[in-house]
Amino acid sequence: MATVRLLSDAEAEAIPAVKAVFDDIRATRKTDFINNFWRGLANDPAALKHTWESLKDAMTGDTALPPKVQEMIYIAVSSANACTYCIHSHTAAAKAKGMTDAEYAELVKLIGLAGQTNHMVTAMQIPVDEAFLVES
Amino acid sequence: MATVRLLSDAEAEAIPAVKAVFDDIRATRKTDFINNFWRGLANDPAALKHTWESLKDAMTGDTALPPKVQEMIYIAVSSANACTYCIHSHTAAAKAKGMTDAEYAELVKLIGLAGQTNHMVTAMQIPVDEAFLVES
Amino acid sequence: MATVRLLSDAEAEAIPAVKAVFDDIRATRKTDFINNFWRGLANDPAALKHTWESLKDAMTGDTALPPKVQEMIYIAVSSANACTYCIHSHTAAAKAKGMTDAEYAELVKLIGLAGQTNHMVTAMQIPVDEAFLVES
Amino acid sequence: MATVRLLSDAEAEAIPAVKAVFDDIRATRKTDFINNFWRGLANDPAALKHTWESLKDAMTGDTALPPKVQEMIYIAVSSANACTYCIHSHTAAAKAKGMTDAEYAELVKLIGLAGQTNHMVTAMQIPVDEAFLVES
Amino acid sequence: MATVRLLSDAEAEAIPAVKAVFDDIRATRKTDFINNFWRGLANDPAALKHTWESLKDAMTGDTALPPKVQEMIYIAVSSANACTYCIHSHTAAAKAKGMTDAEYAELVKLIGLAGQTNHMVTAMQIPVDEAFLVES
Amino acid sequence: MATVRLLSDAEAEAIPAVKAVFDDIRATRKTDFINNFWRGLANDPAALKHTWESLKDAMTGDTALPPKVQEMIYIAVSSANACTYCIHSHTAAAKAKGMTDAEYAELVKLIGLAGQTNHMVTAMQIPVDEAFLVES
Repeated sequence: MATVRLLSDAEAEAIPAVKAVFDDIRATRKTDFINNFWRGLANDPAALKHTWESLKDAMTGDTALPPKVQEMIYIAVSSANACTYCIHSHTAAAKAKGMTDAEYAELVKLIGLAGQTNHMVTAMQIPVDEAFLVES
Repeated sequence: MATVRLLSDAEAEAIPAVKAVFDDIRATRKTDFINNFWRGLANDPAALKHTWESLKDAMTGDTALPPKVQEMIYIAVSSANACTYCIHSHTAAAKAKGMTDAEYAELVKLIGLAGQTNHMVTAMQIPVDEAFLVES
Repeated sequence: MATVRLLSDAEAEAIPAVKAVFDDIRATRKTDFINNFWRGLANDPAALKHTWESLKDAMTGDTALPPKVQEMIYIAVSSANACTYCIHSHTAAAKAKGMTDAEYAELVKLIGLAGQTNHMVTAMQIPVDEAFLVES
Repeated sequence: MATVRLLSDAEAEAIPAVKAVFDDIRATRKTDFINNFWRGLANDPAALKHTWESLKDAMTGDTALPPKVQEMIYIAVSSANACTYCIHSHTAAAKAKGMTDAEYAELVKLIGLAGQTNHMVTAMQIPVDEAFLVES
Repeated sequence: MATVRLLSDAEAEAIPAVKAVFDDIRATRKTDFINNFWRGLANDPAALKHTWESLKDAMTGDTALPPKVQEMIYIAVSSANACTYCIHSHTAAAKAKGMTDAEYAELVKLIGLAGQTNHMVTAMQIPVDEAFLVES
Repeated sequence: MATVRLLSDAEAEAIPAVKAVFDDIRATRKTDFINNFWRGLANDPAALKHTWESLKDAMTGDTALPPKVQEMIYIAVSSANACTYCIHSHTAAAKAKGMTDAEYAELVKLIGLAGQTNHMVTAMQIPVDEAFLVES
């Protein structure tokens, strides 16, 4: 269904630049599982490396937000963008990182409320209050 | 610039159903300030009451997520939906509820990363991994 | 603020292909007013002619939906697409074609509800019920 | 395929707050059929109740717009938001409420035209005509 | 899965206005293949004719941009709009018109980067530099 | 109007990590002009550096697509995402890199057509033809 081929493990092993990223994904995430996004992106080894490093840098190590909150923000953007794959992968990740059922229910509710008020505000073209503007 | 009139305090006072909501917003938020969204929505007092009660219910009291995280999720959805007003109002609210500069910088970075991978995944039409599917 | 020049009446008069469309807009709409969309599009006279004819064909004459309903559908799509100009122009048109305050208030409410349930459905990736599928 | 479980009738029966909403949906719509959106939302009984009541309030009883027009507005927003489920469910509902083939064909045409002019206007960043602004 | 029936060749043959467009598509594209978009749109023969003529006019003959670049622009818009069908059909077309693997990889990268900076700029509500404004 | 402060030259000079990027932007682009995106992003020097390097890497040096085509793809995505700032900055860049008036007019037309067919396809939920699927 993809517009690109999804590289198998054997194919990934045969391209050193891809193998290096797949090895790092496995080591960082402590799992053998490589999800389809990386298998599709592996058609462009430089983009694979760059995108993985951006995500690794942003979402591991010493972050300002807890990992589960990071994933919830990802779900929020992905829902507004209607990215089916992204919603599935980040919902699985958020659960794996400790998102509770109550937090998930609240997230869905907030995404819905934001969708509602975003659409109403835009339909009415409400002007920004001066009180909200940053001094610069 | 709005497609609706923004009700002044005097106009709001004159409509009991609007006055009641404005009073509750002021009491709940402990401030006299009523932002333009409510002033525009006040053209439809029933929608004003219903929308305010939804937001009050979701974002005050005993919530599963900390208030500042709720506001950050709101910013994330509003950015993907390009809702200028919503971004300004919820960024102000998130700061008022304790979002630090480091958390905000990370939020902007994550919104950007989600935009990037959402678009790449969609362009390549990556199929959802079976591992991400919920049993039902 | 546009990325294109907006043609003045004098400039439009000087280009026969533009003048012909502007004349037809004025005759069809029974007004001298030419809004900025057409003045910007006039930089490409062929696109101007084609786009105007599509709109004229769809929204005048013997239509299946009443003119005010057509404009309300336009507002709905434009709100979801966050097109400020389009929201303003079609809200003005809908009012000119008879949209009442009650209908407008209901439109804003429905746009908000659709935004809310669209976002919730997408966040939860609800599968389509078989009952909704068309036989083909 | 959902990120949530879709509650079966037996599971819904076992949760009084869910059973009450499902009963009301069935009574209001005069059918036994409960579509998947409600079955997924039932994981959060409070959100189920609130969302159902919002929709019931907006789309039944004494509305300003005819029911089929309400559904067409819903289809318009859902198409712009690329919400597959919502498009299917509201297209089925619009047909059930009397949308004719000619009206549906016109709706699809208008959604397409709005998509076209929304994108062109945004690409050219056309400024809003003063004539369109509401006095406030 | 569609909300409309997809007309078979036999059905298309039986409606002169549809047959004429299908014949022109086949002659213009030098192939017997008629893709599903046209089969769905054929439910409204006038919209079928008008949409085909717009596309034929824009994308064949003496164009300012090379055909493969036109298709890449189409992929870019379709990715941002999350239109699965459109992404598949225009990716196939771009390849058929000579898009190389390197060009496609760069396209996906650029779509991702644009998604990223679009989201960051919107989240931060960066004001347009005066230097970018067109004189009008 | 931004939600962040836009760093002045003096402020940028005072932060070595920001100064280094601004110097590189100036040297790469052979101009003293630093546009507001970078001044806003400079609040997070690490994100500034990373985003600049991604863009520099993608859009300078030995690219698969001509620079003006890259900018046109950027305009296409930005229009679909309704990113005002991005549309202005990349339209200015495309013109600076040689985009002709005829190419720009065709770009706007194509963005419009893609918006139109994206919306129609989505409204009708047209299924992907098997012929478009990649073997994997």
